[in-house]
Amino acid sequence: MTQSVNRQYYLAQRPSGVPSKEDVVLRELPIPEPGAGEIVIRNLYMSLDPAIRGWMSDAPSYIEPIPVGSTVWATTIGQVVASNSPEFDVGDIALGMNGWEDYSLCAAAATTKLENTMGLPLTNFLSILGSTGLTAYFGLLDVAKPQAGETLLVSGAAGAVGSVVGQIGKIMGCRVVGIAGGEQKCNWLMTECGFDEVIDYKDCDNLTDAIAEKCPDGVDVYWENVGGDMLDAVLLNLAQGARIAFCGWIATYNDAERRAGPQNLWQLLAKSARMEGFVVMSYVPRFPEGIAAMAQWLLEGKLHHREHVVSGLENTLDAFQMLFDGRNTGKLIMKVGDRDE
Amino acid sequence: MTQSVNRQYYLAQRPSGVPSKEDVVLRELPIPEPGAGEIVIRNLYMSLDPAIRGWMSDAPSYIEPIPVGSTVWATTIGQVVASNSPEFDVGDIALGMNGWEDYSLCAAAATTKLENTMGLPLTNFLSILGSTGLTAYFGLLDVAKPQAGETLLVSGAAGAVGSVVGQIGKIMGCRVVGIAGGEQKCNWLMTECGFDEVIDYKDCDNLTDAIAEKCPDGVDVYWENVGGDMLDAVLLNLAQGARIAFCGWIATYNDAERRAGPQNLWQLLAKSARMEGFVVMSYVPRFPEGIAAMAQWLLEGKLHHREHVVSGLENTLDAFQMLFDGRNTGKLIMKVGDRDE
Repeated sequence: MTQSVNRQYYLAQRPSGVPSKEDVVLRELPIPEPGAGEIVIRNLYMSLDPAIRGWMSDAPSYIEPIPVGSTVWATTIGQVVASNSPEFDVGDIALGMNGWEDYSLCAAAATTKLENTMGLPLTNFLSILGSTGLTAYFGLLDVAKPQAGETLLVSGAAGAVGSVVGQIGKIMGCRVVGIAGGEQKCNWLMTECGFDEVIDYKDCDNLTDAIAEKCPDGVDVYWENVGGDMLDAVLLNLAQGARIAFCGWIATYNDAERRAGPQNLWQLLAKSARMEGFVVMSYVPRFPEGIAAMAQWLLEGKLHHREHVVSGLENTLDAFQMLFDGRNTGKLIMKVGDRDE
Repeated sequence: MTQSVNRQYYLAQRPSGVPSKEDVVLRELPIPEPGAGEIVIRNLYMSLDPAIRGWMSDAPSYIEPIPVGSTVWATTIGQVVASNSPEFDVGDIALGMNGWEDYSLCAAAATTKLENTMGLPLTNFLSILGSTGLTAYFGLLDVAKPQAGETLLVSGAAGAVGSVVGQIGKIMGCRVVGIAGGEQKCNWLMTECGFDEVIDYKDCDNLTDAIAEKCPDGVDVYWENVGGDMLDAVLLNLAQGARIAFCGWIATYNDAERRAGPQNLWQLLAKSARMEGFVVMSYVPRFPEGIAAMAQWLLEGKLHHREHVVSGLENTLDAFQMLFDGRNTGKLIMKVGDRDE
């Protein structure tokens, strides 16, 4: 598939709520040319993550927001079509933070060449071996530091990050309890992912009581990525010395109005507990360690995961919206091109 | 002063809001007799702390609440009037968690004999060398772990805990900024306590901006003991890797309605920061270390503090209410008896 133009989604205005087609607009630009030290890739796959919604807002955050008028960012894997760098040849497979577009102009120094894929599909490097899986790996092991025998409670447990967090918890010897919505997701966690217990929040009168029942000794480690009322329910069930790691609050990303914060934070004091935020990007220097460990577990069959691949760059905005109503059934990845062998 | 009865305040019902005389009631009981391993002390001083308000509520917390019908708890210093323990003689000075009462029946094993007071007044052992000062010592050094050169922001800075936190921060080489209400308190912090900067929240249009101005490199360590909107303002000013230690939220103790939590907790993620609660009681085994360090600084003139002593057991409830409208001008201590020499 050769084109003469570069189709690109750009941020036309900052969204309030789920991004609409007035906020994120497809345009056509010339295919870029590489300057010194640059390459141009034709994108094959793009990773769609809830965090991208955060980057569209201009609230203070861990990175500067996407500028209005700029392409929307995503981690992509592409194939080099033009190189002005000795590090890359045409045909190489490259991974980096690029945009929602057919062709990306990349600084070679900020781009990773995928040479040895260990027989694993390329999409794995945007999911379980990408920032999704590495968020689970570093957030759980480096921030929350679970010990064997402790109770690990995972919110968003059927999600791309949560399901991996729970499985790493099992590998570490924790008792793992997941919170997910719907029978299908809960069954998958129990049968495929090896969770010890699952709470279906859609079939639950009182989440605080449900957590107390499934975590009778309290919650030692809570993997928080939902926010809102769920955090409040968990706070009432903390064990002494509990640790809460969080890297995102999908429940609040699209709030036009600021939402009230958790009411039960007092429990951090009552249980000498801590809540700690982290950003996977701060672990970039340790990514090779994480990828090696995760790939090993993957090849040993110890990690189950699902990818939800949607084809066609022109469907990216629709697909992105799925993240916020739970329609995706695995790590969401756009397929935007075919690899030339 | 010898009496034939033991006057005692007891919890008649759980308060909503600031405890009233319907909630906390004075009664007269017989003076207790010591059983095996017990002593009876005549109280000389009682420590009044905001935390006592928390113990009156039955929300889940770090200790079981004061039972309705029981005396209200406080740390007291008394003189032994009857002993059924080989550890204590009549006339000894004893410190322990007792009640708002003239006479307390104490388990000898749970009571500390004050033998060497290093020439310091007894009241110091309920203030700067008591749980107040030790809260500052362990909370700051063990939980928040400030490094020399970092910016330490202290809320409730003119309070009994906050003022000590700031001074320990100075000893550790931090740049210390306090938040307090009113010119008098702010002057005291700058001139006596050696704070580098003070923010008068009562004379401040926008607290977020005021913190940004006084902490241009961001807040590395925040000593949180206010809660409410102040926490939200600080969250918007965190430095990368910030630590928030908290041991109480005086702003919310008396809320009859549950109050919304902080809205800007997201900043913990944005700055890879953590918020950690602690309870000074968990440091009881290390109290001798803390008392020794603090007494040394005190004797060297490095720590300034103020005690606000109110006389008369019968004035305890009125005095306690001062904690919640800021009328006390130092660590609040009741004097309820005179020492027999």
